[in-house]
Amino acid sequence: MAESYRIRTDLALETTERFAEENVEIRGVEIRENYNEEKDMKTTVVKIRTENGAKAMKRPQGTYITIEAPDLSLPDEDYHREVAAEIASHLRQLVDLGEEKSILVIGLGNQAITADSLGPHVIDNLRMTRHIIREYGIKGTGEEKMHRISGLIPGVMARTGMETSEIVQGVAAETKPDVVIAIDALAARSTRRLNRTIQITDTGIHPGSGVGNHRHGLTEENLHVKVIGIGVPTVVDAATIVHDAMAHLLDALDEAEQKEFLEEMISPHLHSMFVTPKDVDETVKYLSYTISEGLNQAFAQV
Amino acid sequence: MAESYRIRTDLALETTERFAEENVEIRGVEIRENYNEEKDMKTTVVKIRTENGAKAMKRPQGTYITIEAPDLSLPDEDYHREVAAEIASHLRQLVDLGEEKSILVIGLGNQAITADSLGPHVIDNLRMTRHIIREYGIKGTGEEKMHRISGLIPGVMARTGMETSEIVQGVAAETKPDVVIAIDALAARSTRRLNRTIQITDTGIHPGSGVGNHRHGLTEENLHVKVIGIGVPTVVDAATIVHDAMAHLLDALDEAEQKEFLEEMISPHLHSMFVTPKDVDETVKYLSYTISEGLNQAFAQV
Amino acid sequence: MAESYRIRTDLALETTERFAEENVEIRGVEIRENYNEEKDMKTTVVKIRTENGAKAMKRPQGTYITIEAPDLSLPDEDYHREVAAEIASHLRQLVDLGEEKSILVIGLGNQAITADSLGPHVIDNLRMTRHIIREYGIKGTGEEKMHRISGLIPGVMARTGMETSEIVQGVAAETKPDVVIAIDALAARSTRRLNRTIQITDTGIHPGSGVGNHRHGLTEENLHVKVIGIGVPTVVDAATIVHDAMAHLLDALDEAEQKEFLEEMISPHLHSMFVTPKDVDETVKYLSYTISEGLNQAFAQV
Amino acid sequence: MAESYRIRTDLALETTERFAEENVEIRGVEIRENYNEEKDMKTTVVKIRTENGAKAMKRPQGTYITIEAPDLSLPDEDYHREVAAEIASHLRQLVDLGEEKSILVIGLGNQAITADSLGPHVIDNLRMTRHIIREYGIKGTGEEKMHRISGLIPGVMARTGMETSEIVQGVAAETKPDVVIAIDALAARSTRRLNRTIQITDTGIHPGSGVGNHRHGLTEENLHVKVIGIGVPTVVDAATIVHDAMAHLLDALDEAEQKEFLEEMISPHLHSMFVTPKDVDETVKYLSYTISEGLNQAFAQV
Repeated sequence: MAESYRIRTDLALETTERFAEENVEIRGVEIRENYNEEKDMKTTVVKIRTENGAKAMKRPQGTYITIEAPDLSLPDEDYHREVAAEIASHLRQLVDLGEEKSILVIGLGNQAITADSLGPHVIDNLRMTRHIIREYGIKGTGEEKMHRISGLIPGVMARTGMETSEIVQGVAAETKPDVVIAIDALAARSTRRLNRTIQITDTGIHPGSGVGNHRHGLTEENLHVKVIGIGVPTVVDAATIVHDAMAHLLDALDEAEQKEFLEEMISPHLHSMFVTPKDVDETVKYLSYTISEGLNQAFAQV
Repeated sequence: MAESYRIRTDLALETTERFAEENVEIRGVEIRENYNEEKDMKTTVVKIRTENGAKAMKRPQGTYITIEAPDLSLPDEDYHREVAAEIASHLRQLVDLGEEKSILVIGLGNQAITADSLGPHVIDNLRMTRHIIREYGIKGTGEEKMHRISGLIPGVMARTGMETSEIVQGVAAETKPDVVIAIDALAARSTRRLNRTIQITDTGIHPGSGVGNHRHGLTEENLHVKVIGIGVPTVVDAATIVHDAMAHLLDALDEAEQKEFLEEMISPHLHSMFVTPKDVDETVKYLSYTISEGLNQAFAQV
Repeated sequence: MAESYRIRTDLALETTERFAEENVEIRGVEIRENYNEEKDMKTTVVKIRTENGAKAMKRPQGTYITIEAPDLSLPDEDYHREVAAEIASHLRQLVDLGEEKSILVIGLGNQAITADSLGPHVIDNLRMTRHIIREYGIKGTGEEKMHRISGLIPGVMARTGMETSEIVQGVAAETKPDVVIAIDALAARSTRRLNRTIQITDTGIHPGSGVGNHRHGLTEENLHVKVIGIGVPTVVDAATIVHDAMAHLLDALDEAEQKEFLEEMISPHLHSMFVTPKDVDETVKYLSYTISEGLNQAFAQV
Repeated sequence: MAESYRIRTDLALETTERFAEENVEIRGVEIRENYNEEKDMKTTVVKIRTENGAKAMKRPQGTYITIEAPDLSLPDEDYHREVAAEIASHLRQLVDLGEEKSILVIGLGNQAITADSLGPHVIDNLRMTRHIIREYGIKGTGEEKMHRISGLIPGVMARTGMETSEIVQGVAAETKPDVVIAIDALAARSTRRLNRTIQITDTGIHPGSGVGNHRHGLTEENLHVKVIGIGVPTVVDAATIVHDAMAHLLDALDEAEQKEFLEEMISPHLHSMFVTPKDVDETVKYLSYTISEGLNQAFAQV
């Protein structure tokens, strides 16, 4: 389809699914699926291994883990605990937590917009330890070994006058963490994905992703340490909804006709709107608990 | 169009516009427009005077004032002050504030969802006086006459286990106000209307209106006092977006074909989603100030 | 001591302690203590059985359960779960939850003041069920029997213009619960008690109690149903601090001298101040989880 | 008095007052008072000019402006506008705003504790411009010249695991402002000062000041640019209250006796408590508007 109408997704999984629909195999991309029937939880690990794979996927090389858990938006504590354990186990594979690490967790997004407040909520529920170890030493904590956890809610550009990446770069340069973990609310391509999918990647946060559409990324390139991105899709761009509803109408048209048709159909100001479930307040609350619990579990042991 | 697809709007103005497009005049409905060019503010007063008019408009008889102010979502204080004065002047026409009144203001909606938090925000900025007069008498206030203002944020059913109408009926029965004014975030039919339109009506709040879709209304019938509704559209139902984008495609079809076509197009779970502008946090903040300022001005004098 | 300087406490336990210090036994008052050494949790049940006892205790007849748990302000999840179970078990003794009940939980206090926000926080974490049963019937819930839980955050008089008791009376008259449970932040006499004590009583909330100093109570007398009060001391009146520091100085004086001395010492505007721990944000967060968890457990079974 | 009991104040004015009471003139310290009777607003400018003065005042050399405005905690909009103008005029004297500047405003304190949330509230009401100029250039703003304003809410150590100074140093090193302005809630020595006093100083924020007791300062020394501190006292340390109540008792004792007496009187855990007015929610709201309005006015022109 015409590039200008290629509809945005922050989920690697949605890109692989599109290829799968078209029955195309992408060289340099490895996909492993695991479905736990009892827990109704599906985990897909997409590894982009070559430059060719990265080009096809329009994403940097690296690992993209997607946990799909249909009941994530329901208030079932046991279920959330299992998802938290799944998150913790993947994190411990992406980051070597077998030795003491200093980890800076960034809660991206806008606290004042429910659908974009996931990252800040996660920070609110994390156990910070870095300042305790600095003040009392590791002995003062009563543990033998301990990760040094710190966290920041940088805020959004319209409210700070600064790029998020500027703030995080400054703080990372000053506090020198070994790893940065950035939590963000994402845009999905399909409303069916909302609030039931968690993506964990070792490639960080890239420009143009997130509900708030970061202009610069948080990546190993600009932070000089490994960056893990954890995201949950909470919105879909409003234009996508229209696009999808008309998808099979469009199939009958050639590319130029599609472009013309869509230009006419999708009013430009739709791109300044997003679509979100009516119970977004509850789901963001549950999801942020689950993710912070996953992080707390992952960090609990050295 | 097939009834089941008649897309929802809480704005009387949008209904009259649809009739205007079709060049239909509705008997029993009186429309007066006033455009203030200097201020770029348009006020439309729709009066539904007969049962026939009410049927055509699918709304109860009464007065519906709509203020359209394109710059409402911008941070221009002087402009907001003028809109507040416009609100105050209409309120003083709908409610006789020439003699002391006891007024209960209800902030409807869900504080935890940005797009639905308009009503609660308005209450936060209102000057309450009822308790002062009750405690110290009117002399204690230093004024000769004064309205007794009280306010309530009832919360939403999922969080209270009660219908909003039950809560308000109970509080109104106990505190016996002369008038109830209910503030709510509304659903519009068009994204172009969002955050730039204020509707004031003397018919109260009706079942099925509001972002949260009240199941029971707040009306003179169930509260036994006059009920003024003040609403600002902050969302559009997600299904509407698709519907509108395809509007002229549909024109070519007959009613049965339209119904079939739409049933196929509009995925049912879209009805549990809403569309909202990406800067909804800022606009809800400005709008709630403007409305509470309008109320404060209207109540300042007897 | 001169009555005007009798320093305020909302805890029955602190009153019995004062009598104990003076080695006075109060007729009509029964005290049972239970200390769980393993959990370091002490529970005291004070039963005021006669009018004489009520007069001595300056409190209505009824049962006052106090749970003292020194680690309540620490983030130890297992410990909080045990305290929640203790709360649940006492609640089930005060309210017969062996048959289906309709229960209205009231979160008293001011959300905008950290030390007074305990009640509203508890409501935010409660599972409401009344609306579900009303809409789908008990069968729709998948259970055979179920309590109908509803909740309300009435707000404080300065922000609503209404007495809290007016709001609760109205809502109770309309929704007809079998029991009202009111959660409130209390004033203690001693800073040592703050955030580590939970009081549960079947006598409701009385005028003059609570951080915000309710002018009217929530009692069986005005609500016409049983009222359980659950309170946690989060503040001490500022005047108390001074008073206590000087206690043994005062011992040397007779009553008239004490009065004169204190009048001089305690500046009247101290009574518009309160004392609160510097980590009140964390402790209110933990405590509200523990109490809502206690309620959720108590309500989970019929 | 014994050093260990010298009670803490963040206000230079309170220190000069103590000297005045003792009829001591301090060399190297210049004091100018200005009382505007009509507005009932008193402004005191204290200039510490020499090392000797700094030693006596226990504060670094520099300018300390204190605005005392008794009605600051009342909701009188006109009065607040006048105080805002006073703040703006002093700011323009401390910082040369006659040429374009890049200014980073820091909102210190804990959003989750009402008395400590002043700084974050001020940031929420500031107009940020830096990102607009960076994106569209100065021409894009429609102005000829414009200050580049940015803002940050760093959070408190217990929630971030980092010293505030680390965060601010990092962000300042990355974004290179010409000036940093830090807003903080302060501890006063007297409850009479609470919420009616604003201190503006060109010496920044020093270790041990603020409600949250910063362990490291924000000063020109560690940020390498000029640092303006703006503070409002919102709390008094609980120990101070007791101390003051007993002040004239203490006068009769010599220094060693005082120390012994106070050690006995003031329970150590009082130092983990603070005293705050019961209406702290309203006053913090008004004060933060006034200060952000003062900043917005100061920054409006080059």
